[in-house]
Amino acid sequence: MAKPLIIVTNDDGVTSKGIRILTELMASIGEVTVVAPDSPQSGMGHAITLDNPLRLYETDRYGKSKVYKCSGTPADCVKIAKSHVLGKKNADLIVSGINHGRNTSISVLYSGTMSAAIEGAIEGTPSIGYSLCEFAEDADFSHTYDYVLKIAEEVVKNKLPKGVALNVNFPKKQEEAIKGIKICRQATTKWDEHFDKRADPMGHHYFWMARGYEIHDKGEDHDEWAIANNYVSVVPCQFDLTAHHAISILNDEWELS
Amino acid sequence: MAKPLIIVTNDDGVTSKGIRILTELMASIGEVTVVAPDSPQSGMGHAITLDNPLRLYETDRYGKSKVYKCSGTPADCVKIAKSHVLGKKNADLIVSGINHGRNTSISVLYSGTMSAAIEGAIEGTPSIGYSLCEFAEDADFSHTYDYVLKIAEEVVKNKLPKGVALNVNFPKKQEEAIKGIKICRQATTKWDEHFDKRADPMGHHYFWMARGYEIHDKGEDHDEWAIANNYVSVVPCQFDLTAHHAISILNDEWELS
Repeated sequence: MAKPLIIVTNDDGVTSKGIRILTELMASIGEVTVVAPDSPQSGMGHAITLDNPLRLYETDRYGKSKVYKCSGTPADCVKIAKSHVLGKKNADLIVSGINHGRNTSISVLYSGTMSAAIEGAIEGTPSIGYSLCEFAEDADFSHTYDYVLKIAEEVVKNKLPKGVALNVNFPKKQEEAIKGIKICRQATTKWDEHFDKRADPMGHHYFWMARGYEIHDKGEDHDEWAIANNYVSVVPCQFDLTAHHAISILNDEWELS
Repeated sequence: MAKPLIIVTNDDGVTSKGIRILTELMASIGEVTVVAPDSPQSGMGHAITLDNPLRLYETDRYGKSKVYKCSGTPADCVKIAKSHVLGKKNADLIVSGINHGRNTSISVLYSGTMSAAIEGAIEGTPSIGYSLCEFAEDADFSHTYDYVLKIAEEVVKNKLPKGVALNVNFPKKQEEAIKGIKICRQATTKWDEHFDKRADPMGHHYFWMARGYEIHDKGEDHDEWAIANNYVSVVPCQFDLTAHHAISILNDEWELS
């Protein structure tokens, strides 16, 4: 069987530690092309570049893998990788990450890492976003390697249900080995934000968002529970946002239609 | 009963025609505060500003309504409106739009308009995104007024199911009057993109995304059908992305856990 063709991207930027590791891991099972943002894009959600041009430059290889840096968002990177960089070839797998920082629970909405994976799924390619629950630039990813490969290999083998991408999160490295993988739902949480009001050196005010969150979701079937208990969380994510249960409520109980 | 407190925002920027109309309409049923981006933010998806400061300035009122312009994304505007601008007061309704351009189907993911509404729903406030299927700066919104108000009033009266925001799209103005409102699911479509390769005046290459889409979804219960048939489409949207149907597939048929 031919080696699978794999696109690697991320939202921390093409030079981050996480994408270098992911590229090496993927190169052990496939033929890899990296197309990633030329600068960090955390928190970009599913942003795309409509009103501006994009720059795309080939840069130094990582091992055998070709590497392109793009001025756009993670979703742009997937689009330009699929429709331009790969030419007529079709990717078998798109992987995004490994993100420096967690993308569990509601963070999936704000996550550039996951927007790339979801973009891949929209375009019909099996796609995975990987994130480590540690922000540090030099974070230790070594406990994730076997799981990154195992999950990628299963996705290449089984494909994924139509319209589904995987959101994979790893706990921060601990003394105890990871206990295994849990297939989860997205936990119900929200960020509690406040805005620090500060003055710049010219005396003009600016605001900086500060945030933290508490997990009120008491379930043991969600991604936050898995991470807190030293499991890898795998949430299958879809991009049909329809709240189907609400359609009948709006039709039957409201006076709209 | 006290007038409802309404936050108005958008993604086309605070000076667009659509937000001025929405503000006027909302001022007829509530007390309105506008907090909107200081520049156009189309295609921003659910981006938020984490690594940079935000600027927020009060500007000229629209009628009686206070207006703030913010340097952030639509989701940032909702966050700073709720946690800073309104102080201890709670909004009864958040409305976003009226967008110049459609946010039907998969566009809901890329839409700054809808990210503001979904952010509102995450924070527990009934929220609506309104979009007109016409891009023009001077688009004619006059056929939408009654529907904008009717839907807002129903939302204030009934609230919305927990975790649900409404995605409302209006057909472009036609000779025939709008036929009514359809409660819909999100149509299954995708954009077909290609990238125009061009050279700038210095001879350096850049790319510009060009796109179009075809609707292959044959259903008559989705938003594209409603718009094509001159109805207002109302899609209830959720932010739990879990593909619940895929959890059992991954648990039972895959060798992961």
